[in-house]
Amino acid sequence: MQIAVLLYPGFTALDAIGPFDTLSPLPGSEVVLVAERPGPVRNETGNLGLVADASLAEVTSPDIVVVPGGADPSGQLGPGAVAEWLRHVDRTTTWTTSVCSGSLILAAAGLLTGRRATSHWLMLEQLASYGVEATGERVVFDGKYVTAAGVSSGIDMGLTLVGRIAGDRAAQSVQLLIEYDPQPPYDAGSPEKAPADLVAEWRAADLSQMVAGHRAP
Amino acid sequence: MQIAVLLYPGFTALDAIGPFDTLSPLPGSEVVLVAERPGPVRNETGNLGLVADASLAEVTSPDIVVVPGGADPSGQLGPGAVAEWLRHVDRTTTWTTSVCSGSLILAAAGLLTGRRATSHWLMLEQLASYGVEATGERVVFDGKYVTAAGVSSGIDMGLTLVGRIAGDRAAQSVQLLIEYDPQPPYDAGSPEKAPADLVAEWRAADLSQMVAGHRAP
Repeated sequence: MQIAVLLYPGFTALDAIGPFDTLSPLPGSEVVLVAERPGPVRNETGNLGLVADASLAEVTSPDIVVVPGGADPSGQLGPGAVAEWLRHVDRTTTWTTSVCSGSLILAAAGLLTGRRATSHWLMLEQLASYGVEATGERVVFDGKYVTAAGVSSGIDMGLTLVGRIAGDRAAQSVQLLIEYDPQPPYDAGSPEKAPADLVAEWRAADLSQMVAGHRAP
Repeated sequence: MQIAVLLYPGFTALDAIGPFDTLSPLPGSEVVLVAERPGPVRNETGNLGLVADASLAEVTSPDIVVVPGGADPSGQLGPGAVAEWLRHVDRTTTWTTSVCSGSLILAAAGLLTGRRATSHWLMLEQLASYGVEATGERVVFDGKYVTAAGVSSGIDMGLTLVGRIAGDRAAQSVQLLIEYDPQPPYDAGSPEKAPADLVAEWRAADLSQMVAGHRAP
């Protein structure tokens, strides 16, 4: 079972690593980080480089594809090598997945049309603009398409997928080993729970502010 | 404010990336990935390379140090460049922190002696062997020393630290942007909550099994 995690300039590190470290333990699996060209790919803030060990051309039939998001995914929403690769490998994947704004990339490639899917809470309207039934749920399954909400939700998606593929016990084992017993110091992780004025400030912020390091408003 | 995230061969990716993506948005901060030598550093399973942008020699007075863990940290527990660097920079840090078995590395460098600290639930006994008051709590503060439990707890630690440094609102902002509203599909994230026989199997497993990709037993 080959699991391909897509990298592109401007990705969010945790979007990629949450699924990476939850899916890696799947028995009989091999995870490969893939990008248009092999070598380091920088994240959205430019201060982190993750190595793509394979080019898109070298990974032609992964069983699972994971598309992370980034604060500004616009560079990946037009025609291009990534969209072509996604459409090609999607023909034979068992699961096609995304985290955060990664669902916009799948949608722009035409893979989510008419399907239910989720995204970062700030990007649900844009997701809907692609003819997607956009929902604010944390992890959404629609057939083989699995989408997760913002950034950290890739951990929940990864564990859920391990459960579907290898059973509850395998998923519980991964959860126990990554000690995923969340105790966030605040209850502000969704627009429904965070202070309303904070949510409003972020809704009014333009994307470039987020790209500039997710600075607090 | 300079935040240095230490990399070494065999680190766990999520240990490094949880603090990375929660601390990066700190106003006025710069995060740098640092290792003995600059360049790609491979993780515990060998299938991921994260780029160290600076050598230990280039980062001499970070304000915050983050030490991630790895399934088998034994290579970092003896005398060596990493231990020397940690002792050196710790003289001037504001916060010296770790995730998972990273606390063993701090302890082996002599920085946690007589202090309260935590680690991955499978490594608490080993932590205590360094004269540390080892606790199973998820995030432990003892003065400027902040340690987190296994792997995913680095997210909780990062958010807690942002709150201490920049205030509740800044931390809530980060939590909202990474949509950290955990909804794990199981309640198995700690040895107290996971099925008892699963916990027992992992307690009996040798470390090499974990290194071999965190395979489920």
